[in-house]
Amino acid sequence: MESRIPREECGIVGIYNAPEASKLAYLALYALQHRGQESAGIVSAEDGRLYMHKSKGLVADVFSADTLEALPGARAIGHVRYSTTGSNMEANVQPLLANYHAGSLAVAHNGNLTNADALRAMIEKRGAIFQTTTDSEIFLHLIAHSASSTFKEALLLSLMRTKGAFSLLLLRPDSMVAVRDPNGFRPMVIGKLGDGYVVASETCAFDIMGAEYIREALPGEILTFDKDGMHSEMPFAKSESAYCVFENIYYSRPDSIASNGRSIYEIRADLGRELAREFPVEADVVIGVPDSAIPASIGYAQESGIPYEMGLIRNHYIGRTFIEPQQSIRDFGARIKYNPVRGVLEGKRVVVVDDSIVRGTTIKKMVNMLRRAGAKEVHVRSSAPPWIHPCYYGVDTPSPKELVASYMTPQEICEMVKADSLGYLSIEGMRKVMPAGVGYCQACFDGIYAAGKPANFVKEIMEG
Amino acid sequence: MESRIPREECGIVGIYNAPEASKLAYLALYALQHRGQESAGIVSAEDGRLYMHKSKGLVADVFSADTLEALPGARAIGHVRYSTTGSNMEANVQPLLANYHAGSLAVAHNGNLTNADALRAMIEKRGAIFQTTTDSEIFLHLIAHSASSTFKEALLLSLMRTKGAFSLLLLRPDSMVAVRDPNGFRPMVIGKLGDGYVVASETCAFDIMGAEYIREALPGEILTFDKDGMHSEMPFAKSESAYCVFENIYYSRPDSIASNGRSIYEIRADLGRELAREFPVEADVVIGVPDSAIPASIGYAQESGIPYEMGLIRNHYIGRTFIEPQQSIRDFGARIKYNPVRGVLEGKRVVVVDDSIVRGTTIKKMVNMLRRAGAKEVHVRSSAPPWIHPCYYGVDTPSPKELVASYMTPQEICEMVKADSLGYLSIEGMRKVMPAGVGYCQACFDGIYAAGKPANFVKEIMEG
Amino acid sequence: MESRIPREECGIVGIYNAPEASKLAYLALYALQHRGQESAGIVSAEDGRLYMHKSKGLVADVFSADTLEALPGARAIGHVRYSTTGSNMEANVQPLLANYHAGSLAVAHNGNLTNADALRAMIEKRGAIFQTTTDSEIFLHLIAHSASSTFKEALLLSLMRTKGAFSLLLLRPDSMVAVRDPNGFRPMVIGKLGDGYVVASETCAFDIMGAEYIREALPGEILTFDKDGMHSEMPFAKSESAYCVFENIYYSRPDSIASNGRSIYEIRADLGRELAREFPVEADVVIGVPDSAIPASIGYAQESGIPYEMGLIRNHYIGRTFIEPQQSIRDFGARIKYNPVRGVLEGKRVVVVDDSIVRGTTIKKMVNMLRRAGAKEVHVRSSAPPWIHPCYYGVDTPSPKELVASYMTPQEICEMVKADSLGYLSIEGMRKVMPAGVGYCQACFDGIYAAGKPANFVKEIMEG
Amino acid sequence: MESRIPREECGIVGIYNAPEASKLAYLALYALQHRGQESAGIVSAEDGRLYMHKSKGLVADVFSADTLEALPGARAIGHVRYSTTGSNMEANVQPLLANYHAGSLAVAHNGNLTNADALRAMIEKRGAIFQTTTDSEIFLHLIAHSASSTFKEALLLSLMRTKGAFSLLLLRPDSMVAVRDPNGFRPMVIGKLGDGYVVASETCAFDIMGAEYIREALPGEILTFDKDGMHSEMPFAKSESAYCVFENIYYSRPDSIASNGRSIYEIRADLGRELAREFPVEADVVIGVPDSAIPASIGYAQESGIPYEMGLIRNHYIGRTFIEPQQSIRDFGARIKYNPVRGVLEGKRVVVVDDSIVRGTTIKKMVNMLRRAGAKEVHVRSSAPPWIHPCYYGVDTPSPKELVASYMTPQEICEMVKADSLGYLSIEGMRKVMPAGVGYCQACFDGIYAAGKPANFVKEIMEG
Repeated sequence: MESRIPREECGIVGIYNAPEASKLAYLALYALQHRGQESAGIVSAEDGRLYMHKSKGLVADVFSADTLEALPGARAIGHVRYSTTGSNMEANVQPLLANYHAGSLAVAHNGNLTNADALRAMIEKRGAIFQTTTDSEIFLHLIAHSASSTFKEALLLSLMRTKGAFSLLLLRPDSMVAVRDPNGFRPMVIGKLGDGYVVASETCAFDIMGAEYIREALPGEILTFDKDGMHSEMPFAKSESAYCVFENIYYSRPDSIASNGRSIYEIRADLGRELAREFPVEADVVIGVPDSAIPASIGYAQESGIPYEMGLIRNHYIGRTFIEPQQSIRDFGARIKYNPVRGVLEGKRVVVVDDSIVRGTTIKKMVNMLRRAGAKEVHVRSSAPPWIHPCYYGVDTPSPKELVASYMTPQEICEMVKADSLGYLSIEGMRKVMPAGVGYCQACFDGIYAAGKPANFVKEIMEG
Repeated sequence: MESRIPREECGIVGIYNAPEASKLAYLALYALQHRGQESAGIVSAEDGRLYMHKSKGLVADVFSADTLEALPGARAIGHVRYSTTGSNMEANVQPLLANYHAGSLAVAHNGNLTNADALRAMIEKRGAIFQTTTDSEIFLHLIAHSASSTFKEALLLSLMRTKGAFSLLLLRPDSMVAVRDPNGFRPMVIGKLGDGYVVASETCAFDIMGAEYIREALPGEILTFDKDGMHSEMPFAKSESAYCVFENIYYSRPDSIASNGRSIYEIRADLGRELAREFPVEADVVIGVPDSAIPASIGYAQESGIPYEMGLIRNHYIGRTFIEPQQSIRDFGARIKYNPVRGVLEGKRVVVVDDSIVRGTTIKKMVNMLRRAGAKEVHVRSSAPPWIHPCYYGVDTPSPKELVASYMTPQEICEMVKADSLGYLSIEGMRKVMPAGVGYCQACFDGIYAAGKPANFVKEIMEG
Repeated sequence: MESRIPREECGIVGIYNAPEASKLAYLALYALQHRGQESAGIVSAEDGRLYMHKSKGLVADVFSADTLEALPGARAIGHVRYSTTGSNMEANVQPLLANYHAGSLAVAHNGNLTNADALRAMIEKRGAIFQTTTDSEIFLHLIAHSASSTFKEALLLSLMRTKGAFSLLLLRPDSMVAVRDPNGFRPMVIGKLGDGYVVASETCAFDIMGAEYIREALPGEILTFDKDGMHSEMPFAKSESAYCVFENIYYSRPDSIASNGRSIYEIRADLGRELAREFPVEADVVIGVPDSAIPASIGYAQESGIPYEMGLIRNHYIGRTFIEPQQSIRDFGARIKYNPVRGVLEGKRVVVVDDSIVRGTTIKKMVNMLRRAGAKEVHVRSSAPPWIHPCYYGVDTPSPKELVASYMTPQEICEMVKADSLGYLSIEGMRKVMPAGVGYCQACFDGIYAAGKPANFVKEIMEG
Repeated sequence: MESRIPREECGIVGIYNAPEASKLAYLALYALQHRGQESAGIVSAEDGRLYMHKSKGLVADVFSADTLEALPGARAIGHVRYSTTGSNMEANVQPLLANYHAGSLAVAHNGNLTNADALRAMIEKRGAIFQTTTDSEIFLHLIAHSASSTFKEALLLSLMRTKGAFSLLLLRPDSMVAVRDPNGFRPMVIGKLGDGYVVASETCAFDIMGAEYIREALPGEILTFDKDGMHSEMPFAKSESAYCVFENIYYSRPDSIASNGRSIYEIRADLGRELAREFPVEADVVIGVPDSAIPASIGYAQESGIPYEMGLIRNHYIGRTFIEPQQSIRDFGARIKYNPVRGVLEGKRVVVVDDSIVRGTTIKKMVNMLRRAGAKEVHVRSSAPPWIHPCYYGVDTPSPKELVASYMTPQEICEMVKADSLGYLSIEGMRKVMPAGVGYCQACFDGIYAAGKPANFVKEIMEG
């Protein structure tokens, strides 16, 4: 799948009232590592103070026994982050920590505001100094500039001014607040751990901590955790829920649990089954692009009755830059990630299932690689509909003109990548599979933006 | 699968006459990373000199553009290594480099000598100073102490004195020599890259370099690469070939090619099929322990007709030590590596296929994890026969008394791990699947050691 | 001299319109390293952007060819810093960089504000978020919050609100501003380099850059450097100048030039001469505590006619923490820094000149060390008057109760340190030597604070 | 003084029977840091094992509390080292550690062998593999190859075969041996610390450890330290002692004690006095090149009656490479090290005393620097005679054709460096000052080599 480029930008976790909270947060961030590999950070609270450690790098590299030891207390929030090239400044690493008139406050944010530019300009006009280029810092300044007498009121009034996507964790010395935006674009789940609570982007974070999944946070819900436990409020005007479909198709871990209680794995297998019904083909073997498209390929195989095999092996230990010889090796970029299993492919008619096609360049190399490994026919199947529109709600997207489906028909793409056939799952097919009972944001496919577009879409402040 | 503990100790690669040889070696080592994650090193040759860079760490961490730039020339050998605890000294990192009366010489070794103790004592008596605790250094001293007038003769006489397993690469300023021991315990394959040659532990190293696989090195073959090309000799007395079955069952990458030209993946799928025939069971779903047991589980599913699903998700980015909270989390060790997919398991009768059971502790945690995820029944199937005897030929093995199958029957193990049933593939079943035409070493299963046991088995010198 | 504890907290340098400004700044910071060994930073400007690199550590460790390459342009400001224990946060490292409504702005500050607490509280009330615990950040917020339409006006109004000591450099993409507070507490000198200008804490920074010294900045002077050259303004109400006497006695480098054009070395030698007149003694040899008290000891020797010798050798390569054996070595702290030259001391009546006595513990160890090296008599002479009062203007001072002269008479101190005699230069004697024509701050000796004391002296915000 | 280039190559320390021996060794190496700034290492012994830590870098950087903790025991040897460019390999860092038939052995060596080439060739012929390019490794191989039944005999026979300079420390699990070559080229002193003993290159190492100086090791003495205390032997044929005069002139620390019990400082001051008698001049001020030529300049001043002043200030924190702007700064190399004190020099007739002139380039820059600082006349005085011949006994020397005095007369050098006069102390004058009762090696001045020259002088093996 070409979707290695669009990456979910952030994963968050919050722990309230559990011993060694920072170590738990570290484990949770490790489980959420797929949501952001560029930086990691944790802020913990104890005895009226906040403690922070954060840095660029993978979770396992950023933290050591010593750094975790220096993050005491039973309360913590954590963040992993991916950002677009050019703005991977050290200063942008989250959580962000502020000292202001009402004390200390840390914030971890997943999502993107659509009115960030206007808010930032307004706040700067009032004298604020920004330390980062992220929209996440806006929350801090709005709260610090609020005239409200209580933190809760300042927070509410600040949130009222923001538009867009935010799953937000705020840590103060004595309490933690979790907020999910009124559309619920980005995921947020609640769990129980001993006497305390945990909040995270996905349930896989609960499993590694040994916490128990309770429920999703509701769109527009504000959850306050303090010495009296968890308190829920729904202060926003009611909006349509608009859950990100791409979480289910691609971003979330397959072992995380979706809004209807099913595993993401099962949803993806169903997407594969639906895809097999929409785009059947005579073939000898079904393979998937590892790791994210494996569930859909298993579903496709089960529905079609064509055997599923591992036709592509993924090189481990990636996530680093590789040094390419000057005498460049053919399809180097694909080769460094995947290697075909010749015995599975040789002389076979191959269905290869991917979960997203972005620029079309990777799938083109993949088709070429499969043919050189002996495949007689290569049939490309995408378990996601054509990706045509950019995401303004927290997914790093290339500019629209780089999205191949925005300017080519499937038939043209099929010819360009030199596949024997190409089938994209339909939007309708996709929706049949998605858990019922909630609304979805599928703007990347249909261009309908529930929370509007930014007036002046500036890439640099789309991080968080 | 408990088999995370026994790890193949080394991977090697040699490049002769290809521009930017060190960069190619680096890519090859990256593809061979699964064979050793503790250290990596490359020695290159140019203009009569050898250049070396090596260190503890993963390939991608050990080398940078700068360090590769400092390894000039069209000839190079490389090594990745895993070692037993306690002897992971910096000095032991390979390749080993020596300056002696006949010039410079580097060696990269995969395997273990069974007469290392005696040889070392003999050489030390003659005044040699050892810099490492590896048996690989013995080759260097034997050659340096040889009275022979030519390097080739010194090498031959030295090799004649060694017993055990060695796939060996030697680099001199103007030539490269590859040796596979007379039994061919450890793998070694030959490829072509442009006008030059490549030698490696597995063919997956060729794929990443864009090299073409020619053939296996023969047991007892000495291959010399010099300005006139590749020369083959077979100077040893003919022995029975004794290829390591564990390479096919567990160590080698599934996309590498076995001795009969089939992919390792296919052999493992066949092991799974044979296992399904030997130990069928009524069940709802077949799952495999990622990543190595997936092919066997797909084979088991295909043969049994029970659907294959991804029931366990592997956490990426491992290979590092994790910091565990003091309030220890149940089954922490298993949890940090795998997470069950509840939707696949809940209420189901589950067959879980693993490729080796060593101490029995991991599979016990795994069964427990599957039950807590809702599995109604858990049937353990091992695509390898019971592992009873230690390996003296290059595989790190726990002491015999730690090998659960050496002191418990399968039935006892089944009870201990609390599975509903447990089936080990038989030795006969395994051999049916292995490529014909060569002999195998299956000493770990049957205790028959083709090259004898070390007189006094000392763990410390079992590395390489 | 015990004065190793009180250290000048900062050194600053600014370069305007000289190629490779960041490399020049780096050399200048290296020459100013004695003014702050805890951290170093440079901000450069080119094409409308600011570039920053800063970190904890010595100048030579913080910067590399690569990091300097990444600081392009012909304009730069730099900072070295020492801070009190506990607040050596990474975030506090200067220069500080801010993005606000009017663009980018960097600041490097030497000195301390006495109304920092009140200003910070006031600004935080208006919604500001502080990223550091330094008073230097206050300048940024005052400017950002100013309602003024121009930068210059905003700066002026901001400076009007501050009280205390500040030698300040501000860098914007197209201009640089240098400010010296109305009392001129902290030093600031102006030089010429080719077509451009340089500003620094001391002239030794000019020497290493090959720049030419022009003159001191005047108390209350604001110097603007832009494409039209250097512009001077004197917008503040006229104050008494109050130059720090301790710069001349201890902090500044001996090769720097004082306000009357004489070298600091000469002033110190004169202090020694004056001291010899005030406290003569029959003795065989005069030695000085290296390195800072050497000039005064040479002066003492010349005036008294007693031979000057090197009686104490300083260990080089200090500035690091040393690991002390548990079986603690006598006078370890002094020993790690100095070693006596027995041949010079044995059987001699020794005058040892120091330039400041803070807690009295170091000089006590020193006297002991000299006696053990054979000195028959030890006469301590201090080229500074008794240090009784804390400094609120930029010099890190122990709390008053740690200043031995604040609670003991010279006679008591003499007995405590077991010297044969002890003489402190008188305030009058000191003033005789100081360059005429300007006023001095000698608050540390006489308790008269030209710019008042902080209402609530808080150590944490005394840095910069 | 130009003598920054020729640097003493090594400092050594040994501790026998003192708790926390490695921490003491670390302190001693810190005091001996001037003898080698490129690498540092310590080997300690406890319970029959040797422990090692060593690395390139300064002592304070190489060791941490953790690394010292990992060097247990009451016995240790340490080494600091400088090496010529090109051979600063990690592998060459001392002490060297070997495992051979008789157990473990570590060696720390100061000096150079003159028959290293022949010995190395001979040993390699016998099959030895060298790990380093140092001549120090030869000792290990000679011992390992010895047929002797006891270590002491093997050591003796090995030493008999070596020619040249060696002050040597050998550590075995239960004993320590110190050896000084029969000529005593390189220094070695013995001290007492509690119940134990210490051996070092200079007495300054004893001072920092709190040890008491007993006496020098004698030329040709072998000292064995074991559970019964210290044992002395003199097994070599009696040779003329040939103590290195350069130790007294330049290398040793001024606070160390020379062979007659006087401090090095006093000897140097006497050299200055003698120089004043040989080359008097009418002048206003005497200055010295810091730090090493300061004692001689004080002596010159005392003898001549001309006032001594600090005319040159040394930048601290050097020992690192500096990044020079491309717009190169005049006399950058000198400037980065020294800065003139204009007030001391302006309008004055200046005598500048240096302790060695090597290539002549640095003194030329220095004279230029002094003139630009206002000196009316500059009279160069060297407290060492003209350096004409290379050292083969442990001092890194440029090739003879780089030694300016080997091809220019003092008058020519005076003109070349543009001094008003130039005077070198005579060999006779120098010898008058040197402690009586022992012989000296002054080969660098007179070309008489007490232990011969190497047959084929190869720079690469001149280290140690």
